[in-house]
Amino acid sequence: MPSINAERLMSDLRHLRTIGAVENGVVRPALSPADMEARRWLAGRYEEANLETTIDGVGNVLGRSRNSGPALLIGSHSDTQPRGGWLDGALGVIYGLEIARALGEDADTKDLAIDAIAWQDEESNFMSCLGSRSYVGGITPEMEAEAVGRDGTVLSDAITAAGLADTPRITHVDGRYVGYLEAHIEQGAYLEDAGEHIGVVTAIVGIRGMRIRFHGQQNHAGTTTMARRCDAATGLYEMAYRINQEFPKVATEPTVWTMGQVQIEPGAVSIVPGFAELSLQMRDQDEAVLDAFQKIIADITVDIESRGKIKVEVEPARAPIRPCFMNDGFQAHLARAADVNAPGKWRHMPSAAGHDPMVLQAKLECAMLFIPSIAGISHDFAEDSHDADIVRGCQVMADAAASILKEATGA
Amino acid sequence: MPSINAERLMSDLRHLRTIGAVENGVVRPALSPADMEARRWLAGRYEEANLETTIDGVGNVLGRSRNSGPALLIGSHSDTQPRGGWLDGALGVIYGLEIARALGEDADTKDLAIDAIAWQDEESNFMSCLGSRSYVGGITPEMEAEAVGRDGTVLSDAITAAGLADTPRITHVDGRYVGYLEAHIEQGAYLEDAGEHIGVVTAIVGIRGMRIRFHGQQNHAGTTTMARRCDAATGLYEMAYRINQEFPKVATEPTVWTMGQVQIEPGAVSIVPGFAELSLQMRDQDEAVLDAFQKIIADITVDIESRGKIKVEVEPARAPIRPCFMNDGFQAHLARAADVNAPGKWRHMPSAAGHDPMVLQAKLECAMLFIPSIAGISHDFAEDSHDADIVRGCQVMADAAASILKEATGA
Repeated sequence: MPSINAERLMSDLRHLRTIGAVENGVVRPALSPADMEARRWLAGRYEEANLETTIDGVGNVLGRSRNSGPALLIGSHSDTQPRGGWLDGALGVIYGLEIARALGEDADTKDLAIDAIAWQDEESNFMSCLGSRSYVGGITPEMEAEAVGRDGTVLSDAITAAGLADTPRITHVDGRYVGYLEAHIEQGAYLEDAGEHIGVVTAIVGIRGMRIRFHGQQNHAGTTTMARRCDAATGLYEMAYRINQEFPKVATEPTVWTMGQVQIEPGAVSIVPGFAELSLQMRDQDEAVLDAFQKIIADITVDIESRGKIKVEVEPARAPIRPCFMNDGFQAHLARAADVNAPGKWRHMPSAAGHDPMVLQAKLECAMLFIPSIAGISHDFAEDSHDADIVRGCQVMADAAASILKEATGA
Repeated sequence: MPSINAERLMSDLRHLRTIGAVENGVVRPALSPADMEARRWLAGRYEEANLETTIDGVGNVLGRSRNSGPALLIGSHSDTQPRGGWLDGALGVIYGLEIARALGEDADTKDLAIDAIAWQDEESNFMSCLGSRSYVGGITPEMEAEAVGRDGTVLSDAITAAGLADTPRITHVDGRYVGYLEAHIEQGAYLEDAGEHIGVVTAIVGIRGMRIRFHGQQNHAGTTTMARRCDAATGLYEMAYRINQEFPKVATEPTVWTMGQVQIEPGAVSIVPGFAELSLQMRDQDEAVLDAFQKIIADITVDIESRGKIKVEVEPARAPIRPCFMNDGFQAHLARAADVNAPGKWRHMPSAAGHDPMVLQAKLECAMLFIPSIAGISHDFAEDSHDADIVRGCQVMADAAASILKEATGA
């Protein structure tokens, strides 16, 4: 089996960290000068690895193996959060490069085809997963003329400013790929808490957002008796409290829900509120759990409305994001490789955060691998992982990539 | 016993309504041209009633009986809310005038001394109860230079603009008054709901305001497990819900509490809140009930903190207003008069809203009488009361005033 070069892997990761470095973090938002500098550097490294390299019209960097397929596409995004950490995205990008190199250097795997990719704007400077959306054919010129970056620049202008206006876009063509692999830091603390080194991702969780509105009657907080009040806020407090009592009865360990936004009108100390709105976000890989949550909300709604004081309105706050399931076969290859490289120290687990595979699954079978985040921190300058975990994760993915392609080629 | 003149009473109330009339409401904020016009008109009516009349340096209008004391001071405020009703304040002011006239016309009571008063700015254009505060000696030139009206004018400038800069202030001098009586619309619906006509006020309720702050840990709403979260908002939801469950166990009928203002930080759908703040206002005439409420809050605080996730901080949001108790003897006179004029159709009751007696009690024994508000509406153009209730209330107060002064003079 191929052996990854730990020193080269860490050296490339550390070099990428210097591009857009601020304090101990990285500021490399999509299409910024730092982002484009990183992409040009990556393209150079892909070329040195004997990959046929293209920077496309949105900035996706593809390093294509000169071997014929079936091929595996491996990578992540190289843009960062406005104040990002050094590993979010970068880790998976350099894994793709290193795995292409490592397999190319091993007599047993040198004929397998690994394409490396660095997607554009996964972190939503202009549009979440811009690069992978463009790849699957999900972007129109109108969308590019309307999307505005965090600094106020329109996406199409930013593309022109980056010198990409006349550059072709890479789009998916059926035939070459067995599928797509992506490694990422966990961005949570399950692995660290359990003393484990590898997470084989089962699914990216589905997200449902709800807005729950309470309609009562605004009134004087001194002279309106409790019996006469139709206090919209009391409905909100009851709903939120009972959600926190009832949801745990059907939740599983990875299920999460958040009520992070509240609006009360008129919002005065001395006025009985006539209106209140609660936002609720729920995430789980199992849609049955999310369905059960909606049933609980409906039951509490009936309860509150039955008292004849407050009307409750429940509506989706956003289009629901359905869970995105990882390919079972790829998971089995990753699991076997994890068993070899971290025996007894890995787990199957869902991803609670979104990633490019949610978009790519329209065209490609996908799988993901996690390595531990120190203290679960991400989207922050303090984001970090232990070198040993970074190296081990790359070896696991290299082993899995080799065995997936061997199986696909019948080698 | 003296008999009030119902036609004259209603005619004066309706005339006062025309000054500052907007739609079917009244806009006569303190020291506005309409307010000053109303005060000059009142001064003329006081003069016609043979009262020795003064408009003082803040606009208080005093009509002093030419009889020697002991005297009763009777009145209310003639300024209105920014969009006020026609009876809030005006009712009590015209009652004072009518009672002075009615007692002066009756052979049995013509030697009793009734002074009529129209206080300034009870409705907080510049400063709540400005007129009565000035009367008890509670206003300094610094306060007048700092107080700003709803239109941005400084109080001292507004006094100058009203032509009152060099006018002396009326202040309390011990000796003349047995006490102060004020009639008011109820501003609630207890009387109407019960089919009653008169409320004899026992006390103006005390008010305590609290700010309850919850300190947790801000985090990612996708990747932070429920077990690891220190969600400040969940503490707030629990506190608010349990307050609404526990307070009714110690509350009495007139007790009210309101949680009308909430702040959640950072207030994003997808971020676990690190901080939350709940405002709580509680009103009762019985401080033991308010004390019991604070004990409940303390108990819930201990419960929430015992889980080791959230710190709770409870602090007063304002200086507490203590309940203001009405004079028992005056209440007995009002009760006897109510028994005569509305047998079986009156009650003792607290006032849930604040009034000038809260200030005046520093110098004067006080009592108040309520008449029903249609649908409990006040501080709104739609505010109204039935004519029969207006007339009946004035007769009750006239009877009580006569009997209080007869008792005081030993007549």
